[in-house]
Amino acid sequence: MLYLVGLGLGDAADITVKGLRAVQRCSRVYLEEYTSVLTVGKEALEEFYGKSLILADRELVEQRCDEILENADVSDVAFLVVGDPFGATTHSDLVLRAVHAGIPYTVIHNASIINAVGCCGLQLYNFGETVSMVFWTETWKPESFYDKISKNRRGGLHTLCLLDIKMKEQNIENMMRGKKIYEPPRFMTVPQAANQLLQIIQRRREEGEELGLTEDTVCVGVARLGSEEQVIRTAKLCQLESCDLGPPLHSLVVTGRLHPLEVDMLKTNAEPGALENLEMIDSSTYVS
Amino acid sequence: MLYLVGLGLGDAADITVKGLRAVQRCSRVYLEEYTSVLTVGKEALEEFYGKSLILADRELVEQRCDEILENADVSDVAFLVVGDPFGATTHSDLVLRAVHAGIPYTVIHNASIINAVGCCGLQLYNFGETVSMVFWTETWKPESFYDKISKNRRGGLHTLCLLDIKMKEQNIENMMRGKKIYEPPRFMTVPQAANQLLQIIQRRREEGEELGLTEDTVCVGVARLGSEEQVIRTAKLCQLESCDLGPPLHSLVVTGRLHPLEVDMLKTNAEPGALENLEMIDSSTYVS
Repeated sequence: MLYLVGLGLGDAADITVKGLRAVQRCSRVYLEEYTSVLTVGKEALEEFYGKSLILADRELVEQRCDEILENADVSDVAFLVVGDPFGATTHSDLVLRAVHAGIPYTVIHNASIINAVGCCGLQLYNFGETVSMVFWTETWKPESFYDKISKNRRGGLHTLCLLDIKMKEQNIENMMRGKKIYEPPRFMTVPQAANQLLQIIQRRREEGEELGLTEDTVCVGVARLGSEEQVIRTAKLCQLESCDLGPPLHSLVVTGRLHPLEVDMLKTNAEPGALENLEMIDSSTYVS
Repeated sequence: MLYLVGLGLGDAADITVKGLRAVQRCSRVYLEEYTSVLTVGKEALEEFYGKSLILADRELVEQRCDEILENADVSDVAFLVVGDPFGATTHSDLVLRAVHAGIPYTVIHNASIINAVGCCGLQLYNFGETVSMVFWTETWKPESFYDKISKNRRGGLHTLCLLDIKMKEQNIENMMRGKKIYEPPRFMTVPQAANQLLQIIQRRREEGEELGLTEDTVCVGVARLGSEEQVIRTAKLCQLESCDLGPPLHSLVVTGRLHPLEVDMLKTNAEPGALENLEMIDSSTYVS
């Protein structure tokens, strides 16, 4: 049996009882380490589970996943994923390979940022399409996430922005030389994400475009959601550019139409002025 | 401390280790029982947790929540919610009352249908706004969910449809007489949901409306997601009307644009013919 086990979002104790039992009966346990991270590392998980973990980077999962599936038809193998196994990313490919090899699989779900973000007080059924924001480079500055956020806002919907994670990056020199030497991991912060959005807004304003969001749009920065060190901060987009939310992982929510109960929840963690000057657009909702 | 603890979706063992520890140290433990249900009842949870549970119906949570919060500033109280505490519904009001009473609170997240539905093989970031479908009555047949599904589909997005749950309903006679006698709980099934959608499609076709979805739209019916008795069935909408998925809870997904990898995943549980005649709309996506 292949077990795909979600680890939740905080630390080792966020695994479910069902997940922990599965891990403890497996002969091999892989920890997927390239799409997300917990606030604790491999060693803390090994101690908590009482099992050794094999780190699974993108190359192992995407190029050599036969190793993961080896003997999984006759023994139990676990594949651990931060959040939910089918959360912010997908491991459909691994599942399909298991299916085609005749290996049964079981998914043990857990919280994902996709649903846990509801704790900021915004209603999950008022979210539109989720977007991913990538680190810009000198030569590659995609803006498609901005257009999706604008579209969601025009429909009155909030947008969860998942922020880029770079694990095992090679610099150009090492890549050219074929050296497997990697840069330190990088995690996009809320201020970095806010900065990229503000640059797009400025550029498009100069081009005379009608803006779907502005410097004054109410946003929510979340960091280490679900852990004891969780931070949630509601602020105007321009305020978030200078909001230090601490270590990773960070996510950003751009709000759409706000229900008064949502505003009340946001007030519990809002920067001064963040929720001023909201425009009442009908008797029951506000926009920024 | 007020703990809001998500129970996940399947049975007693889907609670997280952190959640179980919190429950076991609380002096009172409430089980919210009106927005969702597990595949096991109160007694199975009590045995697993080693604690007595107090059932919390809508009236207790919405009208008498001071009882829940009583002494929570000096002792520990847990409020258990199937799925995630901020998942398909919201308990913002309870949280706000705690905040205003100076009671600290902690959220212990878990899987929700909102993220767990990803296990059917559809990518979560391709979902648009989530909708709720209510039981129609003789005199009240709302169709707003149809319009949201259509809008999502026009944007290429999938739609998660949460299906109605009726707990502690009174019939009109008992309501008029003020008798607190309740009907048995009702849970909307996938065939019932499909039937309501098909009625809307037929009516709107007769009115000459351009349809956002049809009898042939590919849908996914899910039942008891995350439990050992989970069923996932991919079928055309008209096929789902006669698909018995067994006991509750059910949810329905109406697909939008399909990526080939999504199609491959859906094939693993598709009814005959369900994925035939998909139209290729660009080199990488299909629609039904």
